[in-house]
Amino acid sequence: MSFREARERASELDAADSLASMRPYFDIPEGTLYFDGNSLGPLTFASRDVLHRTIEFEWRERLIRSWNEDWLEMPARVGNMIAPLIGAAINTVISADNTSINLSKALHAAVALRPGRTDIVIDINNFPTDIYIAQSVADQYGLTLKAVPADDIISTITSTTAVVTATHVDYRTAKILDAESITRAAHEHGALMVWDLAHTAGAVPIDLTALDADFAVGCGYKYLNGGPGAPAFIYAAPRLLEEAGQPLQGWWGHADPFEFEVDYRPAPGISRFLTGTANVLSMKSLEAALGVFSNVSVGELRAKSVALTSFFVDLFDQHLASKGFTLASPRAPESRGSHVALGFAGGKALVESMADQGLIADFRPPDLMRFGFAPLYNSYADVVSLAEHLANH
Amino acid sequence: MSFREARERASELDAADSLASMRPYFDIPEGTLYFDGNSLGPLTFASRDVLHRTIEFEWRERLIRSWNEDWLEMPARVGNMIAPLIGAAINTVISADNTSINLSKALHAAVALRPGRTDIVIDINNFPTDIYIAQSVADQYGLTLKAVPADDIISTITSTTAVVTATHVDYRTAKILDAESITRAAHEHGALMVWDLAHTAGAVPIDLTALDADFAVGCGYKYLNGGPGAPAFIYAAPRLLEEAGQPLQGWWGHADPFEFEVDYRPAPGISRFLTGTANVLSMKSLEAALGVFSNVSVGELRAKSVALTSFFVDLFDQHLASKGFTLASPRAPESRGSHVALGFAGGKALVESMADQGLIADFRPPDLMRFGFAPLYNSYADVVSLAEHLANH
Repeated sequence: MSFREARERASELDAADSLASMRPYFDIPEGTLYFDGNSLGPLTFASRDVLHRTIEFEWRERLIRSWNEDWLEMPARVGNMIAPLIGAAINTVISADNTSINLSKALHAAVALRPGRTDIVIDINNFPTDIYIAQSVADQYGLTLKAVPADDIISTITSTTAVVTATHVDYRTAKILDAESITRAAHEHGALMVWDLAHTAGAVPIDLTALDADFAVGCGYKYLNGGPGAPAFIYAAPRLLEEAGQPLQGWWGHADPFEFEVDYRPAPGISRFLTGTANVLSMKSLEAALGVFSNVSVGELRAKSVALTSFFVDLFDQHLASKGFTLASPRAPESRGSHVALGFAGGKALVESMADQGLIADFRPPDLMRFGFAPLYNSYADVVSLAEHLANH
Repeated sequence: MSFREARERASELDAADSLASMRPYFDIPEGTLYFDGNSLGPLTFASRDVLHRTIEFEWRERLIRSWNEDWLEMPARVGNMIAPLIGAAINTVISADNTSINLSKALHAAVALRPGRTDIVIDINNFPTDIYIAQSVADQYGLTLKAVPADDIISTITSTTAVVTATHVDYRTAKILDAESITRAAHEHGALMVWDLAHTAGAVPIDLTALDADFAVGCGYKYLNGGPGAPAFIYAAPRLLEEAGQPLQGWWGHADPFEFEVDYRPAPGISRFLTGTANVLSMKSLEAALGVFSNVSVGELRAKSVALTSFFVDLFDQHLASKGFTLASPRAPESRGSHVALGFAGGKALVESMADQGLIADFRPPDLMRFGFAPLYNSYADVVSLAEHLANH
């Protein structure tokens, strides 16, 4: 398929794309082709509008009254908007803090529910902050952290394992882990399972309820488009909500925060995973951006995501494989998340020169170029432009 | 002094006020008299402008490139803007997370530096989240939490005390604790001192360097005017920066976060107290608001704060004491922070009815009305209006 043929094919695919109507919700600058939604989602018109209202009306005019009028319920509202994207029931997800801190809460809660067990199993290719946090939790409890390749997770889990944690979609390769087998293996050995959904939520399906996963955390600023440093989220299985505790027990997680009691009493539900005051501006932006998902099914998102990445892999095979690029992501679409990573010796410099020409991607050491294909705003024409640029670099 | 005389006196004081020139930096709605800067600072024109630029240019246009162009250094920049307000040296303060989470980091770091000791001493009238967090840290290390009235802190510290923690200005009464005596007592017994500066930073002087305090935390959304849920800050004494660790060890606290190493190596300085991604929108708003402090000395702020609260206490004596109000704040100006609390049986309803008329204060159970007097934007005329409203309620 020549690039000319690819462009024609892209035109047909874009014309038939049921999600093409979502692109106008995003305010992507003229001349920018954005392939980094796996790192920072772009601005939505909704976020801009809500931020304007938050600044001008809620903060400037209503001032402290906005806490009762709107903001106190915001973490729960945002959690309930994320829930359907990850197969979670209502009131089992809440928005707070960043992913690292939420992972710490989840791991502490999980370890405390499995006293006497002596190890935590983690994917050694997990995003490093997850490993640092898990190491810290292991150190605090005197446990051993067993960091192993994803393919060895299941065989590493034993009856001494307290918790298993992994990121559902690998941040470098976009490889999707087998959530069902790993969760089942953890449970068969009596361990708890904590999923990191940073590269999942908003682009790749997961059904936490069907998996019977114990805890999950994830990120608000990637495919959820919440804005730079948007708050993260945390999920706990309903069966654990009454018994799970976590050490960052602040006033927002108290059963009755405005009674200012000396003794901590955890809130009855998922809000016990809150700690302190929410970042209102950042969370309002996330809430607005989540509204864009309200008329879209995860199935539609996934179907287009697979079609976009598969189209790119086809063009890679025909035009890039011969030019020093290697495919670092899984070839099988069912094992691939919503970005494609290519190995390339001069990847860092190439990503930088592309940005100067309006094609924005990112780079991860030692030699990986990452290209995110977000089903809400990337088009098939974008894919062809990217592949052609790489072929002609 | 009749209210008419008080108004004349206020006119003279406002005319002579060297900080009156700061009021135009704040966009307080026409018709609103704001006495709740101790809870949520109002919008500055600078925050609005910077948020606009952050949304339109940094997020929308520069997208992921803004991390390198601006955002990565933001927590350190913001910390260095807060430092002079609390007597801290450059690169000893960093902005991150919320106050509760930063207190957890500081207490963990402090306890780890005093192995073998068996208790933590805390002010029982501390803001409750501080007690919840301290209880959690105590539980994790098997320590005893000794929660005692502020006046008993010094006599409770012994050679078994690992850490002493208190809030410098009481959130209910605005009583200023004797930071020098308490810090000295902690150090004399070999304990470390962690100060919470939530009601201090931006209104009440403290000199962490002269005190030789070990750690401090504080809040960005009260007198610093960072906006709702603005990020908090954490300070560590320079002599502790190399040895102090904290369990929320995320990638932002790593010595080289973008090398994505499997092993955690703490950053050499204060940035080891970072965990995950900063809330950009909220932190940019805080940074802008801190700019307002750049031409103001802490001494000027304190002088006007004392003058405002003293003026209000005078009017209380003459017009409110006889009408069911009691003074819950210290009468001595040197012991009083930047708000005044009055006990009043119908306080909750009165605060609500005042808000309907544009006079905004807040209420803390069981019967305290709190009135914040922020030296940057409150005037002496505001004080008279408030007292007259209370007298005539």
